[in-house]
Amino acid sequence: MNFELPGLPDRTSKPRKNGLTMVMDKGLSLRQTLDLVSVCADYTDVVKLGFGTSLLTKDLAKKLQLYKDADIKTYFGGTLFEAFIARGLLDDYRRYLDKFKMEYVEISDGSILMNHDEKCEIIDKLSDDYIVFSEVGSKEAGVIIHPNKWISMMNKELEAGAWKVIAEARESGTVGIYRPNGNAHVALINKILAKVPGEKIMWEAPKKSQQAWFIDLIGSNANLGNISPDDVIPLETLRLGLRGDTFQKFLPKLVMKK
Amino acid sequence: MNFELPGLPDRTSKPRKNGLTMVMDKGLSLRQTLDLVSVCADYTDVVKLGFGTSLLTKDLAKKLQLYKDADIKTYFGGTLFEAFIARGLLDDYRRYLDKFKMEYVEISDGSILMNHDEKCEIIDKLSDDYIVFSEVGSKEAGVIIHPNKWISMMNKELEAGAWKVIAEARESGTVGIYRPNGNAHVALINKILAKVPGEKIMWEAPKKSQQAWFIDLIGSNANLGNISPDDVIPLETLRLGLRGDTFQKFLPKLVMKK
Amino acid sequence: MNFELPGLPDRTSKPRKNGLTMVMDKGLSLRQTLDLVSVCADYTDVVKLGFGTSLLTKDLAKKLQLYKDADIKTYFGGTLFEAFIARGLLDDYRRYLDKFKMEYVEISDGSILMNHDEKCEIIDKLSDDYIVFSEVGSKEAGVIIHPNKWISMMNKELEAGAWKVIAEARESGTVGIYRPNGNAHVALINKILAKVPGEKIMWEAPKKSQQAWFIDLIGSNANLGNISPDDVIPLETLRLGLRGDTFQKFLPKLVMKK
Repeated sequence: MNFELPGLPDRTSKPRKNGLTMVMDKGLSLRQTLDLVSVCADYTDVVKLGFGTSLLTKDLAKKLQLYKDADIKTYFGGTLFEAFIARGLLDDYRRYLDKFKMEYVEISDGSILMNHDEKCEIIDKLSDDYIVFSEVGSKEAGVIIHPNKWISMMNKELEAGAWKVIAEARESGTVGIYRPNGNAHVALINKILAKVPGEKIMWEAPKKSQQAWFIDLIGSNANLGNISPDDVIPLETLRLGLRGDTFQKFLPKLVMKK
Repeated sequence: MNFELPGLPDRTSKPRKNGLTMVMDKGLSLRQTLDLVSVCADYTDVVKLGFGTSLLTKDLAKKLQLYKDADIKTYFGGTLFEAFIARGLLDDYRRYLDKFKMEYVEISDGSILMNHDEKCEIIDKLSDDYIVFSEVGSKEAGVIIHPNKWISMMNKELEAGAWKVIAEARESGTVGIYRPNGNAHVALINKILAKVPGEKIMWEAPKKSQQAWFIDLIGSNANLGNISPDDVIPLETLRLGLRGDTFQKFLPKLVMKK
Repeated sequence: MNFELPGLPDRTSKPRKNGLTMVMDKGLSLRQTLDLVSVCADYTDVVKLGFGTSLLTKDLAKKLQLYKDADIKTYFGGTLFEAFIARGLLDDYRRYLDKFKMEYVEISDGSILMNHDEKCEIIDKLSDDYIVFSEVGSKEAGVIIHPNKWISMMNKELEAGAWKVIAEARESGTVGIYRPNGNAHVALINKILAKVPGEKIMWEAPKKSQQAWFIDLIGSNANLGNISPDDVIPLETLRLGLRGDTFQKFLPKLVMKK
């Protein structure tokens, strides 16, 4: 903080178990990676190298090292996991992870059909060697999953060994937990929160309105993902009530005197 | 100019009193700041460190110096002013401004309720020590202020000592002087322009369509704000009729011969 | 590729005659240009310095050299050509091109009215000295051109000497071959493809949904243009079926075994 401002909401600090910010890197150059960590390291807990971009990224090992030096965890997008699975190449995927010394892995089925027991088996198996993010929800627009199914899948995946479950929204923020117009499925999310521990869920929330909505619902320390590199600092101001969208929410805590 | 092209519209140059471009910096790294000034210094008059981002920005003093070296004025977003005011900490805000040797200050009430006389008093007081941007308009969607009230507030704030009044639009360009779909409130804006000197107003215009609309209405030297760093050069082409959206407007001035 | 993944679709490599990616540079700094070429050189065939931005870009010669060093072709946006033509200054435009040793030129009439025979004469003349991109389609929203006219214009411009014809969409992706909502004019595009060689057409496709739509229709090696610098790597994953949007399309080619 460049100046002390009393009455700000409580905010966790790194290494965070709750209040995580997960950033999506879609192919940043090494220097853009340095730009990101130079200003956002304190507010960035995890970086996802989105979908299959890690396969195409030059100097991947160097980039991963830059994040590691800034104390930021990294993992490859779930769609890449699925591209290996669809080819029956799970062992190759593990070799890919190990070639780059990955500690985290995302296990998802947003683009493929996979028996849920099989998914949980993979989570169980991989969680022996990696910290697992598992993702629930389809990438397909218009696919509606019953809240009870969201809840049972999330809880089973956590029991199978996932560290966090990710609630799908895509980079666009228009599927899964959101309607095509980007508005949240309010009833669904409230039902999930009644039955799954909130700190175990990472909500994909690429749009500012979605970030503000979750902070309003859950508080400063919601776990929020698919954040654009340019939005990390703005998101932190939302968490602290220092931007219009969440300004009012955090006002009642203030000592208001003139 | 890399080549002489005759018949371009007149354009003011720095230091500008009219035709200002105000850019919103939401947390650029030092190197991104250098990128901006290296290509956009001639076209950027003022940089706003949006809402509360300045509090969280590492190396803030160095960043401010980079802008100063490029002859670009800087100020902190009005929401931060309001966060101090809501806590009754105006003197602390002045200490924050002075700690970073700020010459400009934004005084706004987009997120708080403030008596307008009180706002004008603060403008009056702070304008002794700083150059004041004051902002008119609510950040809340759907809030409609009568044109006469816009006009009287703007004129009173100018009389109280504001250098420019800013017409609110937010970063989204969907409130204040715009409808929720981003279209301008045409009648409102024309009424304001009939009663408030145009060169004293800074129109927030984050979207290209909004920038083109104001240039069409007012001309090349409209004061336009909340411009994204990536849009400074594109905006300059709009001002000069070198982009499709304003190409036709500036054609009649050309000697058309083949 | 950082790891071998079998069963990916065939993809052309540089120097490409088909499967081109054309990126729009709206005023990148030299360092941002370096960022782009450092990660995207293999996937970027051509860079357009959009509309009139080249006139305003500092260090233009250095920027062009950075692209050349990365084996990336460059040209100035067609609106700038039109700004010279509207002033009757074609010879000056050639002097501008030659001052910067440009090998490529775009010839368009999106913002001016030009007799089509005259346009083809200019294409014919300039193609003696430059490699010509010619562009078909209006920049104006709501202008509908009959498919037969699209086809005849495209074929005549190719006969006159254009290397590729560009199908207009603007940076917004809402005119020309798209509806105002960004959806493709399906019938129009299919009629064009039935009568104009597909590898001679560069489709402007700034939105991800548009890129995915063309890859679905034409395959991995569609020529796609007006790509944002940040979207080059993501587009390449679309071409390879490594992102949700095109994942299914390329699955049938896989040997599916577990």
